[in-house]
Amino acid sequence: MKFLIINGVNLNLTGKREQNVYGTNTLEEINAYIKAYCEVGCDQVDFYQSNIEGEICNKLHEAYLNGGYDGILLNAGAYTHYSYAIRDAIAAIDIPVVEVHMSNVHAREEFRHTSVLSAVCKGTVSGFGAGSYIAGLVGLNEVLTKTE
Amino acid sequence: MKFLIINGVNLNLTGKREQNVYGTNTLEEINAYIKAYCEVGCDQVDFYQSNIEGEICNKLHEAYLNGGYDGILLNAGAYTHYSYAIRDAIAAIDIPVVEVHMSNVHAREEFRHTSVLSAVCKGTVSGFGAGSYIAGLVGLNEVLTKTE
Amino acid sequence: MKFLIINGVNLNLTGKREQNVYGTNTLEEINAYIKAYCEVGCDQVDFYQSNIEGEICNKLHEAYLNGGYDGILLNAGAYTHYSYAIRDAIAAIDIPVVEVHMSNVHAREEFRHTSVLSAVCKGTVSGFGAGSYIAGLVGLNEVLTKTE
Amino acid sequence: MKFLIINGVNLNLTGKREQNVYGTNTLEEINAYIKAYCEVGCDQVDFYQSNIEGEICNKLHEAYLNGGYDGILLNAGAYTHYSYAIRDAIAAIDIPVVEVHMSNVHAREEFRHTSVLSAVCKGTVSGFGAGSYIAGLVGLNEVLTKTE
Amino acid sequence: MKFLIINGVNLNLTGKREQNVYGTNTLEEINAYIKAYCEVGCDQVDFYQSNIEGEICNKLHEAYLNGGYDGILLNAGAYTHYSYAIRDAIAAIDIPVVEVHMSNVHAREEFRHTSVLSAVCKGTVSGFGAGSYIAGLVGLNEVLTKTE
Amino acid sequence: MKFLIINGVNLNLTGKREQNVYGTNTLEEINAYIKAYCEVGCDQVDFYQSNIEGEICNKLHEAYLNGGYDGILLNAGAYTHYSYAIRDAIAAIDIPVVEVHMSNVHAREEFRHTSVLSAVCKGTVSGFGAGSYIAGLVGLNEVLTKTE
Amino acid sequence: MKFLIINGVNLNLTGKREQNVYGTNTLEEINAYIKAYCEVGCDQVDFYQSNIEGEICNKLHEAYLNGGYDGILLNAGAYTHYSYAIRDAIAAIDIPVVEVHMSNVHAREEFRHTSVLSAVCKGTVSGFGAGSYIAGLVGLNEVLTKTE
Amino acid sequence: MKFLIINGVNLNLTGKREQNVYGTNTLEEINAYIKAYCEVGCDQVDFYQSNIEGEICNKLHEAYLNGGYDGILLNAGAYTHYSYAIRDAIAAIDIPVVEVHMSNVHAREEFRHTSVLSAVCKGTVSGFGAGSYIAGLVGLNEVLTKTE
Amino acid sequence: MKFLIINGVNLNLTGKREQNVYGTNTLEEINAYIKAYCEVGCDQVDFYQSNIEGEICNKLHEAYLNGGYDGILLNAGAYTHYSYAIRDAIAAIDIPVVEVHMSNVHAREEFRHTSVLSAVCKGTVSGFGAGSYIAGLVGLNEVLTKTE
Amino acid sequence: MKFLIINGVNLNLTGKREQNVYGTNTLEEINAYIKAYCEVGCDQVDFYQSNIEGEICNKLHEAYLNGGYDGILLNAGAYTHYSYAIRDAIAAIDIPVVEVHMSNVHAREEFRHTSVLSAVCKGTVSGFGAGSYIAGLVGLNEVLTKTE
Amino acid sequence: MKFLIINGVNLNLTGKREQNVYGTNTLEEINAYIKAYCEVGCDQVDFYQSNIEGEICNKLHEAYLNGGYDGILLNAGAYTHYSYAIRDAIAAIDIPVVEVHMSNVHAREEFRHTSVLSAVCKGTVSGFGAGSYIAGLVGLNEVLTKTE
Amino acid sequence: MKFLIINGVNLNLTGKREQNVYGTNTLEEINAYIKAYCEVGCDQVDFYQSNIEGEICNKLHEAYLNGGYDGILLNAGAYTHYSYAIRDAIAAIDIPVVEVHMSNVHAREEFRHTSVLSAVCKGTVSGFGAGSYIAGLVGLNEVLTKTE
Repeated sequence: MKFLIINGVNLNLTGKREQNVYGTNTLEEINAYIKAYCEVGCDQVDFYQSNIEGEICNKLHEAYLNGGYDGILLNAGAYTHYSYAIRDAIAAIDIPVVEVHMSNVHAREEFRHTSVLSAVCKGTVSGFGAGSYIAGLVGLNEVLTKTE
Repeated sequence: MKFLIINGVNLNLTGKREQNVYGTNTLEEINAYIKAYCEVGCDQVDFYQSNIEGEICNKLHEAYLNGGYDGILLNAGAYTHYSYAIRDAIAAIDIPVVEVHMSNVHAREEFRHTSVLSAVCKGTVSGFGAGSYIAGLVGLNEVLTKTE
Repeated sequence: MKFLIINGVNLNLTGKREQNVYGTNTLEEINAYIKAYCEVGCDQVDFYQSNIEGEICNKLHEAYLNGGYDGILLNAGAYTHYSYAIRDAIAAIDIPVVEVHMSNVHAREEFRHTSVLSAVCKGTVSGFGAGSYIAGLVGLNEVLTKTE
Repeated sequence: MKFLIINGVNLNLTGKREQNVYGTNTLEEINAYIKAYCEVGCDQVDFYQSNIEGEICNKLHEAYLNGGYDGILLNAGAYTHYSYAIRDAIAAIDIPVVEVHMSNVHAREEFRHTSVLSAVCKGTVSGFGAGSYIAGLVGLNEVLTKTE
Repeated sequence: MKFLIINGVNLNLTGKREQNVYGTNTLEEINAYIKAYCEVGCDQVDFYQSNIEGEICNKLHEAYLNGGYDGILLNAGAYTHYSYAIRDAIAAIDIPVVEVHMSNVHAREEFRHTSVLSAVCKGTVSGFGAGSYIAGLVGLNEVLTKTE
Repeated sequence: MKFLIINGVNLNLTGKREQNVYGTNTLEEINAYIKAYCEVGCDQVDFYQSNIEGEICNKLHEAYLNGGYDGILLNAGAYTHYSYAIRDAIAAIDIPVVEVHMSNVHAREEFRHTSVLSAVCKGTVSGFGAGSYIAGLVGLNEVLTKTE
Repeated sequence: MKFLIINGVNLNLTGKREQNVYGTNTLEEINAYIKAYCEVGCDQVDFYQSNIEGEICNKLHEAYLNGGYDGILLNAGAYTHYSYAIRDAIAAIDIPVVEVHMSNVHAREEFRHTSVLSAVCKGTVSGFGAGSYIAGLVGLNEVLTKTE
Repeated sequence: MKFLIINGVNLNLTGKREQNVYGTNTLEEINAYIKAYCEVGCDQVDFYQSNIEGEICNKLHEAYLNGGYDGILLNAGAYTHYSYAIRDAIAAIDIPVVEVHMSNVHAREEFRHTSVLSAVCKGTVSGFGAGSYIAGLVGLNEVLTKTE
Repeated sequence: MKFLIINGVNLNLTGKREQNVYGTNTLEEINAYIKAYCEVGCDQVDFYQSNIEGEICNKLHEAYLNGGYDGILLNAGAYTHYSYAIRDAIAAIDIPVVEVHMSNVHAREEFRHTSVLSAVCKGTVSGFGAGSYIAGLVGLNEVLTKTE
Repeated sequence: MKFLIINGVNLNLTGKREQNVYGTNTLEEINAYIKAYCEVGCDQVDFYQSNIEGEICNKLHEAYLNGGYDGILLNAGAYTHYSYAIRDAIAAIDIPVVEVHMSNVHAREEFRHTSVLSAVCKGTVSGFGAGSYIAGLVGLNEVLTKTE
Repeated sequence: MKFLIINGVNLNLTGKREQNVYGTNTLEEINAYIKAYCEVGCDQVDFYQSNIEGEICNKLHEAYLNGGYDGILLNAGAYTHYSYAIRDAIAAIDIPVVEVHMSNVHAREEFRHTSVLSAVCKGTVSGFGAGSYIAGLVGLNEVLTKTE
Repeated sequence: MKFLIINGVNLNLTGKREQNVYGTNTLEEINAYIKAYCEVGCDQVDFYQSNIEGEICNKLHEAYLNGGYDGILLNAGAYTHYSYAIRDAIAAIDIPVVEVHMSNVHAREEFRHTSVLSAVCKGTVSGFGAGSYIAGLVGLNEVLTKTE
């Protein structure tokens, strides 16, 4: 299996900001942890991060047209709550996308309780810290490999 | 690790109703699948199902007072969307609870987009069919065993 | 034809409470009246009443799995206005359900103007007192026996 | 007994439009079916249809001042959802009016879930196709002839 | 001065319906009373009533194009609360229009608290029974004849 | 007849502020005009103005307990839109109160479209400038002297 | 091609009212301009105008049953914003309808921002004055003649 | 006097959960404290607790039909905020019910600010911890024994 | 113990207005009744009433800076529903304040269902007539003297 | 005449995504079709596409400062529904902008029913597929060349 | 330059209440600090404080009629959020008023996020503690002395 | 002291667009004016402008990680009203940010009345034209240098 993990706005600061919410591991450390986990199962995983909404759309397009990915994990950061542009990009492509959040967004500010992306994603995972990415990969794997 | 999986209202009909939404596996088959998965990792898992809101509260109380569980997966069914009683029961106990849904609730009717439980849960997983329980267990495990 | 009539919460007090709204006939008397009406048309009718939301779900499940009913009349009482659990139970079963109210709920308090059940029922009847059950049976009969 | 059945806007096209919603019987055929049903019970029934809101008010006034009707069935079509003019006309007259819909309006578009007429009607019936008129007449009969 | 008094939907029933709200005088008697009042001040007054929204628009157009009126009193009845058609007709003509209600609409049902006409009228009067028309004429006269 | 006219907050600045909305006549000049009008009909009229919400309540109480007034005209200014204190004072006394506004409040800012006073007043008049007080007195007189 | 252009309430006053919004050309002049434009392309075009909501429904029915039209342009005026009756009439017929407005309704009062008709129309055009009709015909032509 | 005190969902955990909100006394200790207080005034008091909504309705019915109680204190827990079933049960019985909360619900989460029960209760008390029950009994006693 | 009881706007009219809501006892009689009740328990109680919002704030400030009170009962009348000024005054002082209402505000007009004061009060009591003050004093006493 | 056509986010995928909504023609093919149409009328047309909100603003600025365009057609894609940045850019420049959509946005998801751009555009066109651009150019031409 | 600084309700308690929000400096100390700052620039500054809404209106009137002020800083306290009376007083006078808050009101309770005063003020400043007054004076000075 | 001033979307057009709102000074001239003002106080100030949301986030990150700034003034333009991405970037960094607007946003369109940034800023300033930046710097200075 080949997966792509896209992190959106401000996630490059993970581990350097609001450590009570996001922990002390940097995005690089988290990515390394995920990579290690995937290699156990012989899955390939690529990583992308951008703070620019339109470039996240570009990456989703590119993954669809040229990427050969079986699935995508997307933590769009704050764009989750209002980017209909990213929503449309997800809907436009033919790869299952899983919405991921490290924190439990439902236990935080009101504006984080609404996601404009969920409806066009395959599934959602939140609240397990870096473990959310692992759970998302497992869930995606279940859906892709099991006949239900 | 020792886990409890609670299924709420109408989930006893899984596999027998709306198969386009919930698939054709019965709740017993799903539970067996989860049990098999857990045994690989030497985790213990118990199962409970009820259609009665107050009995789900009772079960959460009992798990807290006498159960010795490390974590709980809760698929409350339609109670997810209005049962402040179950919400309070979750908040009252000292065990991490993960909210689980087999379908992607955000892609269905408007009323399913609101969960009154999420804010007091540790995390949420939805959209992977029976795989949502597996992903929820993995996420819970990540949180319980990793230092972040 | 074989019908089931389910009465929900507080309807066991009919005839003993708020007589200006619900009249002075008890539920038993109303049921007898309906039974007599049905026997004229050689229809069989069973009756069930419970104040517990989850047990109403149980009864709907049972009617579906083992009941052999051609249709169900459901007066869910106050659960009409918020029980997504009962809504899901109705949607889960393969028998037409008719929503019935003795009073004209639209002429009463604001909260009674919203029904979370109507959208998954076959039809609705309200405002004819005990006659609402009769009208509901007639309407159900029309739908089941006429080709339109 | 003497009844009046008023059909409102676009109902003249019944049987000629959206047959998946309204069936293939024309309004004339439906009226004939109702008339036949009434004659069994020796009830008299008159019919009226208009697409003009104010003329429906006129008809309600006239029925009140000169009609000698025991009850009225009103299917106001789309006017149901916003015509306070018709609502006031119903409230102004001293004859019980029953709100009737052939389709289950609660299972259709959002705007059809609100009726500004229900609160001033005696009762409501929806979802039984042409059978809704029959059920409405039966319900009206129950209320007019039974002592409760 | 020359005035036009337009009464809208259901007002032809005044005195014959809901006498606790509208009193027992018929529209003809009220008009006669207004006419007598006007003749004292040598004002001319014409009367028009229709239950059809579009004809009220027609009358407003005609009054503007051919009528020579100094002002119009409009009691649109229930159309007050939703007829943007009449609102646009008022805005389109170059004669001051006063919104009149016999009852105190603000002390009645919620839907009567909103008028879509007020913003394009010169003024509003409500709550004085038939006296509202008199007060409206006096107010209009004040505005037309005084320099402020 | 004996009337009291109460003007509320900022109305002491009439004629000195926003002359495009309120004209150039001062409150004293307006009061003199009203007094002259009343003397023609041999009515007695008293005037009161305060910028303090609680003192307006005090004046209403006093008018009720000791004033011998047949009616009150109240232009509460901005308090109209939120003072439930004044609303309760009006409801507490046994004298008909008429809500008066010089401008057409419905054609101004959104917040002026809501009055918390109207529901407990006898009637309302707005939009005729100083003439609104005259129209209010005439309307009040109609109600007090005519049998309807 | 054969088209029908229906103009709704108050549009008969075009050119005679609010010239800053609607310009100085009368409806007759606008219709002549459209006719001339159509004749270049050898299209046939008919015109209808009514201020009565129900008659606009009637015209739509008639166009459907007997008209032989390839498409309809509808400028419903203020009915655009609340006439579910006209909406249902459009939905009931099998001819593409284009919603047209001369002014840019989105730059005017709040209530004009909502159209209850758009969802059942083929397309919408607004803001080009009389040119909106021309643009609507061109758009309709594109859809009817191109294969996409 | 004879009183019944009903505690609803999760209140069996009082003293064992969220001690910063509910204190450290168990429900049994609180009941003993109330009993002791009542015995001073020679009042009789009974206690009931259930986590099941429908059983609370059953208890209210039973208290009404067979209980001989002068009044009921009801702390419905989270059911306070959405159980129209309990609301209807209170409205159905002829005993004054007082709504009681130990915490000040208005200073907690948004959803706790709305009670669907208050409107059909005699009175409400909140915020005094176990003292809320004492204050509720005193208030009830005042109402039952004083002539006002 | 030393308590202060503050009554707000229009409460000086108690016993003289709306006797069906507030009874026939005057504020002086109610105060005397409370005083007598307090003297049994050797508590001292002072009384204050004002119709002016800002003076109620002043009194709260003064009670805090110079009063030596153990607690305050506040019946703010209609200010309860919108006076953020009084809310801030309560929050600013270091004495527990109990919100008191004689009537059951939740069973009256919609606007009385919201209190902007509750969140910063220690507790609330409503619905026991003059007994609400007694119950409030008892509740306050419980909180101040019991260790929980 | 010289026009600029700006396509926003995800429109580069046209013809490659959701073909049931957007058809099978690619953006390049659509642009070629528009260009051919314009050349008939000797109009010049330029094309621009970007997925980045801020770059669309940049292009609008540049068109204004250096472009010499007579008008702009803008299909902003999902940015239509929330980009106040683009709205301000349109308002900032002195060239008429027409909002264009290929699909009928009003017949799709709720969030597509609101455009934050319309109010500052000259006009809007939607629902004619690629023909919407043609209709938009025709409408713009009408406005620019006709005297109304 | 001559300025007036008006402080509203509860601000007399500054330094004595909620010191985590408002700091420990009293209003007198803050005023002295501002006075010292102004004297550096040879500006004159006067101070006024009241807890009574109507007296703040009175002061604004007086400043306008007799004060000779170049500008006013107004910290209305809680009245900021609902006093349309003060809003109208600001709108009525011909002196620029700046809305000032010591705390960042947008980071506090929901009700503090809305100001009914801002729209009629020249500018707003919040969040700099006592420094907000200094910043407000500087801003006012910039506007009054610079030509832009 | 060292400050950074960030201007967001469309502010590069200042002085070239909507001069009635923003004046005729270009952004360069405004920056020069601010720089001159800062040099008097020996403060250092840097400037940045971008129309791209994500780049503003990047700049905030960079200022935090490498900039050595004591404070930031941010005029985000239209992004103020919906960019949770920028909000999160502000919250993520450890430098006080002041929200600045040249116009009084509360006196303009409805959508400009809401800022999603204010709650995470130190303070806000609006309405003083270019003077808003000066006032913001003064306020920031007060907070950074005074002990309160």
